[in-house]
Amino acid sequence: MTTRLLIVGFGNVGRGLARLLISRSQWLKTAEQLDCRVISITDLRYGTIVQPEGISLEPVLQHIEQGTPFSTQPQPTENLIRQLDYDVLIELTPTRLETGEPAHSYIRMALERGRHVITTNKGPVAHHLLELERLAREKGVHFRYEGTVLAGTPLINLIRNHLAGATIHKIEGIVNGTCNYILTRMAAGMDYTAALKDAQEKGYAEADPTADVEAWDAVAKVMILAQVAFGQKLPLHSISRQGISGLTVADIQQALREGHHWRLIATLQQQDGILEASVAPQKIPQDHPFASVTGATNAIAIYTDCLSRITITGPGAGPVETGFAVLNDLIHIHRKITRTPNGNHNPR
Amino acid sequence: MTTRLLIVGFGNVGRGLARLLISRSQWLKTAEQLDCRVISITDLRYGTIVQPEGISLEPVLQHIEQGTPFSTQPQPTENLIRQLDYDVLIELTPTRLETGEPAHSYIRMALERGRHVITTNKGPVAHHLLELERLAREKGVHFRYEGTVLAGTPLINLIRNHLAGATIHKIEGIVNGTCNYILTRMAAGMDYTAALKDAQEKGYAEADPTADVEAWDAVAKVMILAQVAFGQKLPLHSISRQGISGLTVADIQQALREGHHWRLIATLQQQDGILEASVAPQKIPQDHPFASVTGATNAIAIYTDCLSRITITGPGAGPVETGFAVLNDLIHIHRKITRTPNGNHNPR
Repeated sequence: MTTRLLIVGFGNVGRGLARLLISRSQWLKTAEQLDCRVISITDLRYGTIVQPEGISLEPVLQHIEQGTPFSTQPQPTENLIRQLDYDVLIELTPTRLETGEPAHSYIRMALERGRHVITTNKGPVAHHLLELERLAREKGVHFRYEGTVLAGTPLINLIRNHLAGATIHKIEGIVNGTCNYILTRMAAGMDYTAALKDAQEKGYAEADPTADVEAWDAVAKVMILAQVAFGQKLPLHSISRQGISGLTVADIQQALREGHHWRLIATLQQQDGILEASVAPQKIPQDHPFASVTGATNAIAIYTDCLSRITITGPGAGPVETGFAVLNDLIHIHRKITRTPNGNHNPR
Repeated sequence: MTTRLLIVGFGNVGRGLARLLISRSQWLKTAEQLDCRVISITDLRYGTIVQPEGISLEPVLQHIEQGTPFSTQPQPTENLIRQLDYDVLIELTPTRLETGEPAHSYIRMALERGRHVITTNKGPVAHHLLELERLAREKGVHFRYEGTVLAGTPLINLIRNHLAGATIHKIEGIVNGTCNYILTRMAAGMDYTAALKDAQEKGYAEADPTADVEAWDAVAKVMILAQVAFGQKLPLHSISRQGISGLTVADIQQALREGHHWRLIATLQQQDGILEASVAPQKIPQDHPFASVTGATNAIAIYTDCLSRITITGPGAGPVETGFAVLNDLIHIHRKITRTPNGNHNPR
């Protein structure tokens, strides 16, 4: 079955996805009976391509590696979403944490038209997940967003599907790789400014690191998890927030001598029906699963009545890591539509 | 929709499941539209109950807590599986690692009749997973076995569904809680004999601990994972096996001084198309995710081309922990049959 994709936003994640679609093309066809055809790509920086018969992705990637824009001017994204003939909108525009716009509007437009949507964009999911899921249900389509938290590490699916039947009462996590990288460098003796500079040079931190180090990014992920795990929408400013910029090397090394590790911890906890959420640096003991989570790795611990604590650890960012989340969401939508039995083995 | 269950084997896991079915009954009906009716329970020790209109589980559990058998004699399990009118066989008989019988035959009988099957029994899955899945596909029914490895910690589902599209090249894990508990006690200074005795007193180790400490149990789990992750059946004796009974407190404490932790590690690795499998004690460095896995906890690390390493840590045994695996499998079969959209929130 041919699945036609419209890709909106073609930064690192879009390109990571494109590389996976190229390398897995044959496997997807034979193992999953999934024939993906990208019918349009649009990006503010590179322009717009529309080819209903399918875009050849290799030349597009080469174009971008050479820094040259696509041949055509960007067209208004709304028009593409409203007018083109596609099955799945892949929404990968830059995140705006404050409002989730314009991505939220793009996603709504596609769902309203009865198209499936996959996004890795935290903003619209943090602010509007429950509403977007309701709309998708009404329209009989799928809305998936595995890549919004912990990249392709399958946290969202794990909570959604494989904890059904257990009651979650607490979630805590290391959800920002940039902060964890900086704290790891500081534990090795580097001061905050040098560790931040190192993170920027390695591509983990932006030129303006505020969203990461002041924990806005972690707060957006908490807002997503509150909806996924507890079915509750928390307003941005109801979440207590403290970043890592106040920590010193002395704090961190003193804790180490006492067998503790400073980590930026996001917490969601339900007690007596009230859901409390916070992000703040915390000292973690040596035998906690987060003690060995270093560098840009992320981790989430989920506390339930049936399974005490389960922890999942994995990459929290990266073009292929996040592109994979989109690919896996795509495979799942396809399995659901075609009722393919689950359980295909490795692509080879 | 009413789902009629036949429960074969009613030990700790069966009773854990029964308690969950009681406490979640209302939630299952409202959130999942799943009305479970246990129409028969059979157990070699307690006898057989058949009540097509549904067994009241509370009195059955009370009966067993008082150590009294059910009112009727055990009936031949084959007859129940072949003759009763049920939707899902819940196969929870004691594991026989060498052959997987008679559980394997029970599962086949139910699948042949076009009934869904859920098991937590390692033997039949280790020896016959690929064949049983093929049979289930032919008959258009579901065969699920989440509880066979890491109890309800959703490892099988994670590999099956949420890594689809990535190529797994290596899996390593702490898959036997008894051994990990003993090694943890030895790290605290207890000798092997005392640590084993402690594990037996706590209910982690059997009176005859051979299956655990000589790593037969871990080997069975390796056989399961070889099929789940690599689609390959490995004969029992092709897997290199070394237990923990040769380790001394001196070994373990010397390693600790060097910043290393002894763990019993199961490994599956595919190189140049060849899958190699082993179970053996290994020294793990401090920054490895397994370093913080202590006591009866289990953990699996999965190495893929898209996500580098992801690790899942959680309980590896326990009546409620394993009963939950069955409940979650049941919910999934129901969702697949009724095409319920995924993503219900917490039972409350």
